[in-house]
Amino acid sequence: MVFYGYFRSSAAYRCRIAFNLKGISPENRYVHLRKNGGEQKMPTFTALNPQGLVPALEIDGAVLTQSLAIIEWLEETQGGPALLPSDPLERAEVRAFAQVIACDTHPLQNLRVLDYLKGPLGHNQAQADDWCREWIGRGLSACEALLERRNEETPFCFGETPGLADICLVPQMFSAARFGVDLTAMPRLRAVERACNALYAFADAHPSRQPDTEA
Amino acid sequence: MVFYGYFRSSAAYRCRIAFNLKGISPENRYVHLRKNGGEQKMPTFTALNPQGLVPALEIDGAVLTQSLAIIEWLEETQGGPALLPSDPLERAEVRAFAQVIACDTHPLQNLRVLDYLKGPLGHNQAQADDWCREWIGRGLSACEALLERRNEETPFCFGETPGLADICLVPQMFSAARFGVDLTAMPRLRAVERACNALYAFADAHPSRQPDTEA
Repeated sequence: MVFYGYFRSSAAYRCRIAFNLKGISPENRYVHLRKNGGEQKMPTFTALNPQGLVPALEIDGAVLTQSLAIIEWLEETQGGPALLPSDPLERAEVRAFAQVIACDTHPLQNLRVLDYLKGPLGHNQAQADDWCREWIGRGLSACEALLERRNEETPFCFGETPGLADICLVPQMFSAARFGVDLTAMPRLRAVERACNALYAFADAHPSRQPDTEA
Repeated sequence: MVFYGYFRSSAAYRCRIAFNLKGISPENRYVHLRKNGGEQKMPTFTALNPQGLVPALEIDGAVLTQSLAIIEWLEETQGGPALLPSDPLERAEVRAFAQVIACDTHPLQNLRVLDYLKGPLGHNQAQADDWCREWIGRGLSACEALLERRNEETPFCFGETPGLADICLVPQMFSAARFGVDLTAMPRLRAVERACNALYAFADAHPSRQPDTEA
């Protein structure tokens, strides 16, 4: 198993957490999103993932892409603790929470989107940062509300052990802090983040602890 | 089962196709995204979905949100034809294709994003349309490449019967046509779209055939 990632990619960060929770150590290759005009756009990488985005996971000649698809594949094929509940209604709840982040929040603050805002649309860095804060704020507010309406309080988003929702939340909270999003109205998300980062699986996957980390 | 949708929402359109393929007819309620300042933002709707986005599916007091989570729930609980292959590697391939659209393409051309481009960022309609064409073009090009590298040609994206990938593709192709995206370099996607739209399940779910349709 060969994993192609980048230390600061939220989607790669999710996969790193999932590998750790499952106790899997793929061989790592690093794709630098800002060097050489973006290594993710080079033919050597687009041959693996025509979308030109990290992460990608090579297995027996096949290449898996898209972090949520990779994590569902891990869940279906690898042992280790379950990342989704067994009840279908609860699975749907966890997946919806994950998708608020993976579909409606993170893709809006992706590098290529910020490049388009600053290039063709002529915005400055401050406006690009406002844009990120806007979408991260809206996405995380929705996540806080999803936890608030649950009947029970648990250390992790949807239970006593971390799963797919937590895997998506923690990288998004990291990027919220980077952009200075105000998280005071999100006590539940902050508590979950603290609980997660106290675990080796999450701490070890942090962008600051990767071999390709930069200041 | 009560389904909250809007005729032109890509995510609601996906669910309508999935209901039809599974032979399920939920009770329909319509949330007008452009009337009354956006009915999706009203407290009656945000009580169901705090994210303030369609679709939502009410079942036995629980509310499911996010189209892909709803469709996976249908797949796990309802009979009818399978929307995902049984082999885990193939499931991952189908989910990744679906997520190229549902994560990296569609959320960028959502109403709320266009409102932000035209409001706070001061762009005109032509610039907002260019923005949509940019992201739809990139997303669908990646989808075409994902089909191109398969070893076999099939009438639907990943097989002889339609599934999750086709469910996500057809609404995105509809919105590509609306925005005038050039699809000449995507013969595989166009052939799949034709095959899908020849089926009742897809034709009946088309935005032009809904009770809340407008010109």
